[in-house]
Amino acid sequence: MAQPGPQTEVPIAGGVVPPLCTPLTPERELDVPSLEKLTGHLLGAGVHGLFVTGSTGEVGYLPDSTRHRVLEVVAGVSAGQVPVLAGVIDTATPRVVEQARAARRHGADALVATAPFYVPTHPAEIAVHFRRIRAAVDLPLLAYDIPVSVGTKLAAETVAELAADGTLAGLKDSSDDLDGIRTVLETVDTDRFLVFSGSETMADTGLRLGAHGLVPGLGNVDPDGYLRLHRAATAGDWALAESEQVRLRGLFHLIKVGMRRPMSRYSSAIGAFKEALVARGVIEHGTTSVPMIPLDEAERAEVRRFLVEAALLPE
Amino acid sequence: MAQPGPQTEVPIAGGVVPPLCTPLTPERELDVPSLEKLTGHLLGAGVHGLFVTGSTGEVGYLPDSTRHRVLEVVAGVSAGQVPVLAGVIDTATPRVVEQARAARRHGADALVATAPFYVPTHPAEIAVHFRRIRAAVDLPLLAYDIPVSVGTKLAAETVAELAADGTLAGLKDSSDDLDGIRTVLETVDTDRFLVFSGSETMADTGLRLGAHGLVPGLGNVDPDGYLRLHRAATAGDWALAESEQVRLRGLFHLIKVGMRRPMSRYSSAIGAFKEALVARGVIEHGTTSVPMIPLDEAERAEVRRFLVEAALLPE
Amino acid sequence: MAQPGPQTEVPIAGGVVPPLCTPLTPERELDVPSLEKLTGHLLGAGVHGLFVTGSTGEVGYLPDSTRHRVLEVVAGVSAGQVPVLAGVIDTATPRVVEQARAARRHGADALVATAPFYVPTHPAEIAVHFRRIRAAVDLPLLAYDIPVSVGTKLAAETVAELAADGTLAGLKDSSDDLDGIRTVLETVDTDRFLVFSGSETMADTGLRLGAHGLVPGLGNVDPDGYLRLHRAATAGDWALAESEQVRLRGLFHLIKVGMRRPMSRYSSAIGAFKEALVARGVIEHGTTSVPMIPLDEAERAEVRRFLVEAALLPE
Amino acid sequence: MAQPGPQTEVPIAGGVVPPLCTPLTPERELDVPSLEKLTGHLLGAGVHGLFVTGSTGEVGYLPDSTRHRVLEVVAGVSAGQVPVLAGVIDTATPRVVEQARAARRHGADALVATAPFYVPTHPAEIAVHFRRIRAAVDLPLLAYDIPVSVGTKLAAETVAELAADGTLAGLKDSSDDLDGIRTVLETVDTDRFLVFSGSETMADTGLRLGAHGLVPGLGNVDPDGYLRLHRAATAGDWALAESEQVRLRGLFHLIKVGMRRPMSRYSSAIGAFKEALVARGVIEHGTTSVPMIPLDEAERAEVRRFLVEAALLPE
Repeated sequence: MAQPGPQTEVPIAGGVVPPLCTPLTPERELDVPSLEKLTGHLLGAGVHGLFVTGSTGEVGYLPDSTRHRVLEVVAGVSAGQVPVLAGVIDTATPRVVEQARAARRHGADALVATAPFYVPTHPAEIAVHFRRIRAAVDLPLLAYDIPVSVGTKLAAETVAELAADGTLAGLKDSSDDLDGIRTVLETVDTDRFLVFSGSETMADTGLRLGAHGLVPGLGNVDPDGYLRLHRAATAGDWALAESEQVRLRGLFHLIKVGMRRPMSRYSSAIGAFKEALVARGVIEHGTTSVPMIPLDEAERAEVRRFLVEAALLPE
Repeated sequence: MAQPGPQTEVPIAGGVVPPLCTPLTPERELDVPSLEKLTGHLLGAGVHGLFVTGSTGEVGYLPDSTRHRVLEVVAGVSAGQVPVLAGVIDTATPRVVEQARAARRHGADALVATAPFYVPTHPAEIAVHFRRIRAAVDLPLLAYDIPVSVGTKLAAETVAELAADGTLAGLKDSSDDLDGIRTVLETVDTDRFLVFSGSETMADTGLRLGAHGLVPGLGNVDPDGYLRLHRAATAGDWALAESEQVRLRGLFHLIKVGMRRPMSRYSSAIGAFKEALVARGVIEHGTTSVPMIPLDEAERAEVRRFLVEAALLPE
Repeated sequence: MAQPGPQTEVPIAGGVVPPLCTPLTPERELDVPSLEKLTGHLLGAGVHGLFVTGSTGEVGYLPDSTRHRVLEVVAGVSAGQVPVLAGVIDTATPRVVEQARAARRHGADALVATAPFYVPTHPAEIAVHFRRIRAAVDLPLLAYDIPVSVGTKLAAETVAELAADGTLAGLKDSSDDLDGIRTVLETVDTDRFLVFSGSETMADTGLRLGAHGLVPGLGNVDPDGYLRLHRAATAGDWALAESEQVRLRGLFHLIKVGMRRPMSRYSSAIGAFKEALVARGVIEHGTTSVPMIPLDEAERAEVRRFLVEAALLPE
Repeated sequence: MAQPGPQTEVPIAGGVVPPLCTPLTPERELDVPSLEKLTGHLLGAGVHGLFVTGSTGEVGYLPDSTRHRVLEVVAGVSAGQVPVLAGVIDTATPRVVEQARAARRHGADALVATAPFYVPTHPAEIAVHFRRIRAAVDLPLLAYDIPVSVGTKLAAETVAELAADGTLAGLKDSSDDLDGIRTVLETVDTDRFLVFSGSETMADTGLRLGAHGLVPGLGNVDPDGYLRLHRAATAGDWALAESEQVRLRGLFHLIKVGMRRPMSRYSSAIGAFKEALVARGVIEHGTTSVPMIPLDEAERAEVRRFLVEAALLPE
């Protein structure tokens, strides 16, 4: 087993940082060979970082032991080539600090934490929360703004305050609030504070507004697409970035294949990402966590048709 | 140390089942002597059960090791006198199953679990969630309906379906939806399915509608009051139950002492419960978890005035 | 035509005050003969008041001219026998004042107004809103608390403040917050401030908590049931009140007949009430306003089966 | 008085279409001379259209007679130079149809209507709603997507369906959902369906994504800024558009001047726009509708400082 750890610490940087899917066996154990292959597939494409145990990685479902093993495997394969960011997702500060300490031990180069959830929290308490995590674990800390899961939006004022005092090294925005991203970018030192957009469909716009990087779930399936988009944006070729985005917007409709049946959009989206990775030969099984509803054969065929149309699979 | 465990399994029953506060030292470690004393204080009053690691117990803040220790301590003191119910609070099924297994090992007689949170979930998935927990751990399972934390209300239809097939042994309602409680009571076998109201302020109404038990956070502070209310209700003396409820409604305003300052209502309420327990000589410190805002001296004095008015403290 | 107006002013009182359906012709004009018959049907049953242009009366759909005509017709038939309350529903203060003035002209004995909606409003502005309406039109003013429509819940503190200074004569609660009703009843002078529960299914509980009256939409269909319930409650026979409530709870499931098709629960509920009135021979047509989806033949038959089961229709 | 009406019908087009403030006298009557001057101020700047009785125009507060007079005054001053769009804001279809008929009579060239609000509505019913309005009044109809007021977001599928069948001629987006705007633009015939962004702060991004026009409330205060931004965008000079946007983003903070006191953000924003128009000599009074809280002297001074900084007022 690779022995990752803080000694291999790698500075986080912008660019394309896909939130890795977590491959499972049909018995719903971690499928380590598939995870290694997925990591290699992304590194081979040239991604700038790897984000593990995020929403796309089914973090809310994974037991701690699985979260740790995921991190070890990915940090081991990456071996310092690119920074590994770890989602440290739990309800409130003492539990998040425990997650953060474990993530550091298991090879994280940076931490991504939400505001408290489940417990009702005041903005003044949110600032305390991030400060305590930062004080407890000496790794760069990014705030994860994901209102659909946390129930509240991180205020731009709170982010700015925590950027100014060095608590936060960055923001991972999954709120689809581009105006908010712009406000944050106006109020932080953009040389020292990195903003990542979690949007699959507005990545070009996010970069144009000044975001440093992208964390698209669809980047598991088509990392080359997001890398082309990012290169075009970096070169100032916005027309090319936009045309790549238009193509990726079309492909992204694959997340809806299950929505004609009673299931959460999450079951449909994660199921579709995993099925696409199976179809592309990257992972072994499309299995998702309990209690997500598995895609049926017709839905899986529809995923493959999306890939054929996108020329990611031969006809 | 007491060696609690499933061998001391006690059938759950209705009645007054306070959700225990979790006493902390000023360093925010578990204050075991205070927890033992609190447990004794409640058992001495004659409560019918003990609910640990619920919202009043700051479960969202407690690391797993603390959750386990709380359970061991309380189950050790109770030693089979009354059933010990444990909140097994985590984001989705595999994590909740781990919490449930640990709770069984550490002495729980029954489990109390919410629907998944943080991860978007469809009603069909919620049914799968509870069935998997029940199949994984052989203890009575109660659903915990707490929309303010989970983000969604448990549908009465889902509860009825899971009651009928034996998945759920009961419901702990913290949704303040008395109409919903009534609907559940109309659709389940009330000899085999127990409904607990989590309301401090509508306990008499809940019992009148047929609820089997009460889980009032304020029951930490004034267990005698809720026991009198419950006895009156059981005897059919609704006027007496109501007059006790009116008194407890007045006392319950102590949860608002902090609300003139920027803090969550949770910081104010848990802080007030703990300060009241300190004032009554039950626990040692009023310390609450990070990132909750501590009450200040004026607010603590206001808590004591509430107790004096309620004749729970000499003038 | 009767010439209603303030000269026939009747003091509002508690009791059963059904929110009248607004019968329409197939061409969606006001069906005056049906409305007269409905009014007579309710007066004949012995109701204590009549509430027109509320949610059950499709007020959100009715043009002003129809609202006025409804009021004239009902006030004309009632002719001072019982007070006629009018919903004066509009987005913000100047528009509500116009509605209120018109309602007074067309025969209202009291006004029922919500907080502003559509326009974002601060609690401080809500108090100004009610004070201006009361100052502009000299009729008793009730606050209508209906969060599902308005988007916010009226704070008990605001109600208490506006009760104390004489702005409000009462509250019509459609928030299903029984704890809130109890808080209001604890903080107002219950001899001068009347609380009405809008719940069909918790009417007995509302009365037990001290509410003065009931405004149940289902009271259009079965006024006798709610009157029996109210009489039992007034006589202190809570077991009888409860058994009547249990029966009415069963009948109330008729509002769900349309919910297997894509329509709002409002289309289903209002459609069911009107179909039941047609089946009982009270009104001529089940027509509802645009854009509500009409019930189909199978759904209408299901409504009739509910009535047969409730012995409101011969088999 | 000008005699406006459908005979002066003007095709709607993209560009800058400010949503006019509605000037009031201190007695809260319509201030006609100020409204004429405001209209002239905007026409003189070169705006491409005028949008009356929108949210910035306090439509939720204005009685019908005032709404009609506003439209007459503005249509009269414009006299066919640019199209006049009218918000026809009411709770449900029959009431909106009445508003639409009146707007046509009083000089509107196009109508802007929301989905039903106050009444719970199903998406299938929303489609019926727009079709009935379009069928009833022969003017171009735009959907107004303003979730903060209506409570729900218009689904892109519904907009696409109603664009395809000719019901809708366009969309006025006040949802700040740029991804949604992009989806609509991908699915409609952009030669025949116009998309307007209501954002003050993301106007450049909206135009870059293909939106046809802008409806910025701040355009009352600084029409020249938005016109420069729009001209730059039309010329493909995105850097210039962006720098103008950055300046306008700074100026837009003036809407927060009142937020340190208890008032709605609406009171603060509309108050600030009107105070700025007073300071620039365009209108006479800063009066806003009841129950909005008026700005105090310090807040008004702060508005003027914003204008000085933006070089819209001499120091």
